[in-house]
Amino acid sequence: MNQTLTLHPPTRGLHEFTGEVARVVSESGVESGLCTLFVRHTSASLLIQENADPSARADLERWFDEHVPDGTGWSHTQEGPDDMPGHIRASITPVSLSIPIEGGRLALGTWQGIYLFEHRTRPRARSVVVSVIGA
Amino acid sequence: MNQTLTLHPPTRGLHEFTGEVARVVSESGVESGLCTLFVRHTSASLLIQENADPSARADLERWFDEHVPDGTGWSHTQEGPDDMPGHIRASITPVSLSIPIEGGRLALGTWQGIYLFEHRTRPRARSVVVSVIGA
Amino acid sequence: MNQTLTLHPPTRGLHEFTGEVARVVSESGVESGLCTLFVRHTSASLLIQENADPSARADLERWFDEHVPDGTGWSHTQEGPDDMPGHIRASITPVSLSIPIEGGRLALGTWQGIYLFEHRTRPRARSVVVSVIGA
Repeated sequence: MNQTLTLHPPTRGLHEFTGEVARVVSESGVESGLCTLFVRHTSASLLIQENADPSARADLERWFDEHVPDGTGWSHTQEGPDDMPGHIRASITPVSLSIPIEGGRLALGTWQGIYLFEHRTRPRARSVVVSVIGA
Repeated sequence: MNQTLTLHPPTRGLHEFTGEVARVVSESGVESGLCTLFVRHTSASLLIQENADPSARADLERWFDEHVPDGTGWSHTQEGPDDMPGHIRASITPVSLSIPIEGGRLALGTWQGIYLFEHRTRPRARSVVVSVIGA
Repeated sequence: MNQTLTLHPPTRGLHEFTGEVARVVSESGVESGLCTLFVRHTSASLLIQENADPSARADLERWFDEHVPDGTGWSHTQEGPDDMPGHIRASITPVSLSIPIEGGRLALGTWQGIYLFEHRTRPRARSVVVSVIGA
């Protein structure tokens, strides 16, 4: 069973959508199986990260700013200084993720949340396909 | 249903094989499900990237050249200066990827292509297993 | 079929557990399908790497030490200088991996082993869920 979520990240960075994915799993009625996410873009990705402390998310975004900085040193710049870094950030972070389903729920660890990792400074709507397999 | 593709990347870098994967999905007859790719090597990986502009691919390869450079500073060098960087590049990019299938086709976004990311300078044949699950 | 493995990494770094995953696949009786792993933590991840040469693993760990160093420059430091680097390392390496099953066995390449990549210097027990799909 596949269902497409449309997300509206307000800014660059990490935006949690664990609740939306949990709702799709719940509606599927699958008790034991696998939930796979896929982002249909080349300048946004997915991340499972600590959902307790906002400072962890800020530090993580700072690491990406330092190692894949915006700038004008790229060949591919027609969409702006944040476009090429967006493609590179989406290359070293997942575009697909699979999470087991147990007892009808996502088997996430205690501290894990599911995030859209938006890499553009002026984001648009983003599509994430949720595939649920199991019985 | 699993099928193994044998790819012959002519050089280091990104080589699109979206068409080969689409053919396996089409032949499987699966209308709705999941297509999972797995590369059976430790110095090549997979990437979903922009398939429109070659300059985006060149910039991406340049980032990897700068951050995981070839060289002689490694312990593991018996296979050449591009061997260890190959293993590291294959650690921070995917060896497996899952793409939803909808309407009998890969549900890729408009700008997404599927690439083999070859990390060796003198590549050999590479095996990628395509697993199709669904109905 | 999902089964949870509890691993006890003795140190930071790469710890192979290919054998444990192979045992779950064998016990499942699945001949052809897909085996998906998911680590239920935000400071440990998974890696498929060369299982022949320990020097390759040492070089890989050194690259991560250099590019995502421990330190006190982070905001999120209450759990120690290795906590935030752990989250970042777990962001640029996989938390989920899918490996095809063929002939009742993991279809790994000749040189591939499955590793837990532990990012904390004083590790605790780690849970990895193994999901087997197929027939």
